[in-house]
Amino acid sequence: MKAGIDIGGTFVKFAFEENENVKTEKIPIKHYIENKDIKGLLEDILNVLKNKNIKKLGIAVAGLVNKEKGWVDTSPNIPLIEKFPISNFFEEKLKAEVFIENDANAAALGEYKYGNGKNSKILITLTLGTGLGSGAVINGKLLSGVNGVAMEFGHTTIKKNGLKCHCGRKGCLEAYVSSYGLERIYFLLSDKHLSSAEIITLANEGDEKALEAFEIFNDYLSTGLMNIVHIFNPDKILLSGGIPEYYPLIIKMAYSKLKEKAFPLSIESVDIDLAKLGEFSGAYGALALTTQEEV
Amino acid sequence: MKAGIDIGGTFVKFAFEENENVKTEKIPIKHYIENKDIKGLLEDILNVLKNKNIKKLGIAVAGLVNKEKGWVDTSPNIPLIEKFPISNFFEEKLKAEVFIENDANAAALGEYKYGNGKNSKILITLTLGTGLGSGAVINGKLLSGVNGVAMEFGHTTIKKNGLKCHCGRKGCLEAYVSSYGLERIYFLLSDKHLSSAEIITLANEGDEKALEAFEIFNDYLSTGLMNIVHIFNPDKILLSGGIPEYYPLIIKMAYSKLKEKAFPLSIESVDIDLAKLGEFSGAYGALALTTQEEV
Repeated sequence: MKAGIDIGGTFVKFAFEENENVKTEKIPIKHYIENKDIKGLLEDILNVLKNKNIKKLGIAVAGLVNKEKGWVDTSPNIPLIEKFPISNFFEEKLKAEVFIENDANAAALGEYKYGNGKNSKILITLTLGTGLGSGAVINGKLLSGVNGVAMEFGHTTIKKNGLKCHCGRKGCLEAYVSSYGLERIYFLLSDKHLSSAEIITLANEGDEKALEAFEIFNDYLSTGLMNIVHIFNPDKILLSGGIPEYYPLIIKMAYSKLKEKAFPLSIESVDIDLAKLGEFSGAYGALALTTQEEV
Repeated sequence: MKAGIDIGGTFVKFAFEENENVKTEKIPIKHYIENKDIKGLLEDILNVLKNKNIKKLGIAVAGLVNKEKGWVDTSPNIPLIEKFPISNFFEEKLKAEVFIENDANAAALGEYKYGNGKNSKILITLTLGTGLGSGAVINGKLLSGVNGVAMEFGHTTIKKNGLKCHCGRKGCLEAYVSSYGLERIYFLLSDKHLSSAEIITLANEGDEKALEAFEIFNDYLSTGLMNIVHIFNPDKILLSGGIPEYYPLIIKMAYSKLKEKAFPLSIESVDIDLAKLGEFSGAYGALALTTQEEV
């Protein structure tokens, strides 16, 4: 059997494929992260995987993945697993072939193989969650980069010397286009600290300030999308994460603004849509890693 | 025989390949552009190509290339050829198979096949000339985009609401990283209008203001390079055009500044170097089009 696991800050998600059927599952891990208990975390994961005769395992994980070493160099949300030789660990425990990839890259591959990106020639995915994740699948192959750290689109500068990003840089796209970006924009408009979920609820209720915050958010998002279409000239861009899932209007808003900004030819064939696999996109992507080549 | 032609604003450059030897040639065309004489221009090109038994012809041209139509939608430097069915024209006149591509994209392919990018897994090229051209060759294939307009990196926003770009947008990378970008930076520092060639000469002579202008120019260039390595995680970036050719120190300066800005893993394997083919990179690239697949 083939399996994919997606190790996030709150859950490990699993996708198992047998006879072309995919089953998913998830287990909570936040307590392990808080208690810095990597042994407990790995035992829980192994318990789900064992007795399943897994021959190939894909691992998606949040952070900068060092493929050569088979581990995560830095992971702001799961510091516990930084530089732990996770690929080797599962290779030995399961006697399986292991593939490892950044979760946002894997999610792109998941959407390409199992989701809304099927048959796309140049697929770009953006996950608007806590941070801004992104991935690219070009002619069916993941753009992984020579060190496995391609598509850190969230950490491209869009406003030189702009707002500080969680990564320490200034003016990254993520500093504006993420849940904390939205929260900041709302705060600057209203002087109130609300969570992105609260801002989304207010926007859906027609609250003026929340709608204004989304206009500004969209101005940055659509400029980010312009950069993407000017670089990749893709046929498909899929958005995922809490913001587009609970405020899907943002997709229409972004496309409309993108049309004002981009070279017409660069958006002639592009479709912008919601990703399909939701919270399991990383697990599906990890599963897809077991059968894909990389760019 | 196979041939590539690169139609620019001043010259048409040719590259001919026979028995693995490549010969180059160029003809001036500025007078045709000024006189809006497309017939004369095409006759001159045909005169060079005829009696050579050309079976495959690659065309590189400055502007947004519409491959479906086989022409250039918009070309600020060669408005004369906008929407002229140039592919069809040469197909009929030469009875040859014709391939058309944006000149900066073609240049990337030229460097990959004939220049300094051989054996590179992910190659990015930047041409710092009048504007800022860029191209990407990923696993030997040109990233051309679904409409043939990928890698307009010069027209990605790096400073939202920044200086006006020649394209009409604000804050594009090209607005800073180009010969006119350098001229502006120098003007803002000194209140003097000098050409980029004059600024380069002054910098090479150690002039303080010119060196200061290059520091600022490099701040933008290195941020652009950071965006590139965060997106593509390439193993090779090649710079070409008048600025790096006559002020090659900029390459070391840019790499040094890039190291301060980028994720360490994203630049661990990257080499930044001068492109090799100089003014004929587009013609070599056009030639390479005749044997390459696209992404």
